[in-house]
Amino acid sequence: MFERRKTKQLYIANVGIGSSFPISVQSMTNTDTRNVKATVEQIKQLEEAGCELIRVAVVDKQAAQAIKAIKQEISIPIIADIHFNPELAIESINSGVDALRLNPGNINNQEAIQQIVTLSKQKQIPIRIGINSGSLEKEFSHLPIVEGMVSSALKHIKLLEDFDFNLIKISLKSSSVPITIKAYELLAKTVDYPFHIGLTEAGTLKAGSVKSSIGIGHLLIKGIGDTIRVSLTENPVEEVLIAYEILKALELRQHGINFISCPTCGRCQIDVISLAKAVEEKLKGIKTPLTVAIMGCVVNGPGEAKHADIGIAGGDDKCVLFKKGQIIKTVEQKEVLDLLIKEISSII
Amino acid sequence: MFERRKTKQLYIANVGIGSSFPISVQSMTNTDTRNVKATVEQIKQLEEAGCELIRVAVVDKQAAQAIKAIKQEISIPIIADIHFNPELAIESINSGVDALRLNPGNINNQEAIQQIVTLSKQKQIPIRIGINSGSLEKEFSHLPIVEGMVSSALKHIKLLEDFDFNLIKISLKSSSVPITIKAYELLAKTVDYPFHIGLTEAGTLKAGSVKSSIGIGHLLIKGIGDTIRVSLTENPVEEVLIAYEILKALELRQHGINFISCPTCGRCQIDVISLAKAVEEKLKGIKTPLTVAIMGCVVNGPGEAKHADIGIAGGDDKCVLFKKGQIIKTVEQKEVLDLLIKEISSII
Repeated sequence: MFERRKTKQLYIANVGIGSSFPISVQSMTNTDTRNVKATVEQIKQLEEAGCELIRVAVVDKQAAQAIKAIKQEISIPIIADIHFNPELAIESINSGVDALRLNPGNINNQEAIQQIVTLSKQKQIPIRIGINSGSLEKEFSHLPIVEGMVSSALKHIKLLEDFDFNLIKISLKSSSVPITIKAYELLAKTVDYPFHIGLTEAGTLKAGSVKSSIGIGHLLIKGIGDTIRVSLTENPVEEVLIAYEILKALELRQHGINFISCPTCGRCQIDVISLAKAVEEKLKGIKTPLTVAIMGCVVNGPGEAKHADIGIAGGDDKCVLFKKGQIIKTVEQKEVLDLLIKEISSII
Repeated sequence: MFERRKTKQLYIANVGIGSSFPISVQSMTNTDTRNVKATVEQIKQLEEAGCELIRVAVVDKQAAQAIKAIKQEISIPIIADIHFNPELAIESINSGVDALRLNPGNINNQEAIQQIVTLSKQKQIPIRIGINSGSLEKEFSHLPIVEGMVSSALKHIKLLEDFDFNLIKISLKSSSVPITIKAYELLAKTVDYPFHIGLTEAGTLKAGSVKSSIGIGHLLIKGIGDTIRVSLTENPVEEVLIAYEILKALELRQHGINFISCPTCGRCQIDVISLAKAVEEKLKGIKTPLTVAIMGCVVNGPGEAKHADIGIAGGDDKCVLFKKGQIIKTVEQKEVLDLLIKEISSII
């Protein structure tokens, strides 16, 4: 529905990133990476939720070495998040990491950069250049923030290109939606590397979901973005769930149930809010794509939700069950939840 | 930051709608409008949350008459939601309603339409034409859905314009984000009436917030939208809160606290998630605009959140309190919540 920006392609292990691949969903652990057990446990929960790439913070040598043990227990590619210290990059590569997040310009050592790039090229390990508006280099502080972020990205890109390395993806994050959007839009005019999109420090579940949905959503509508991370001050599983809600809303990916439910109004004759919550809870974790409608009134319900695979609409004392807009059955209100779940289970 | 689409202007009582006014926030009650006490109570909760316009369903004559009593108890303008029945529009106007939502094309009675328009013009009562993709007239069903919605809107507009009435605002809602966006973008090229923007049947709190944020957010970025309604299968107070989160994220309105909080990672030394939730809870209801940062690590925290009015950043066993990026004080972790709340209270 939206024309995607054409980009170079790369692979992080078996996950393709770029305009010919689906937009992938990633997250980051908030465990201590050196605690292999806790980190593996969290990654497994994230995998279960649909996470396709996972990033871990590499704070020291022990964390870099832990990647080896973590990798043996998980099924998705692992990315090392590194700041400043080139040894941690080398150590992570030696531990079998699938990709790096590393800003080469922050390493004031040409030899070290060359060593990282040589190893990364050998092992086909992509590097994400991750610019954050809050930690921009002093040399760009005279520029307006959007231009500063883009200039910083271009500097880091050049450092890698000078070593003939192009397994690059780029992010340009800010906690401000307008700044984030403008930075990506500006850089998209200049380079054709794939983009990791998202905001940083977006906030708690509610406010952070709104910010991420607007920022990531707008960029995706403009065709920009090849892998997404929703950043929330929350259990990272929520990041993955919100990421899929964004992709589903834009019909870019399918993932589990798509709910259509009316806001209820003075016309409403059943408790739509409770029923919708109960249905949502019962169907949590289902990955089969299915559109389910919960509508308050029988007059407009089936018609307004005629594209739904299945749905119910409330009436005076009875409800109707409908499939693709056609009424199938009339039932008592108290039976409706069980019947709906039963019918959905039989479809799946 | 985003150039707003130039529109005609109108007033709903004292609330200006159109490109020279702030984007207003509205919601709809889900009480039985005939139950004046319950409806007033809900509207008061909505006012408290920042709701600026309220719509009620008018299902019969008794509901239309209830508007008179409701209006005496509330402070914000009230809009009657009417389908098909012209008498309910007349009755609502006689009850002192401030605006109507009514699709004149659904009333097959020229005389009745003329009567409504004459009264509306006399009393300067605007009419919203509210097109929903799910209940489009049969005459437009041969068209692609977006074109069908726009054609339906144009038909209804012409009916009002033929009576020389132009206190019109328009909505074009669907539960699909892409369809909603495209419909508004298409109609924006043709008419200059103000738009009420939003999705319909967007779903439960989480999924519905994501859909509404993307759809409403994208349109606002494009300069489209003069009043917004977030539609959720939830207590309508949540609709108002999410609406303000959208407007705050795009820096179009200020409303209470703007939280910057990091997603936490393996580097994090304090429990940012619990702290952020506690601070958010304690500051709920505050309307003074203020940016508050809760950051996990002291290294990047104050720098990354230097535009925050106030913030804290976690360290090994102590935290720092900073204002506008400058560290003010170092405190024990257990004291940090109380101190932050105290400092914020003194600012407010």
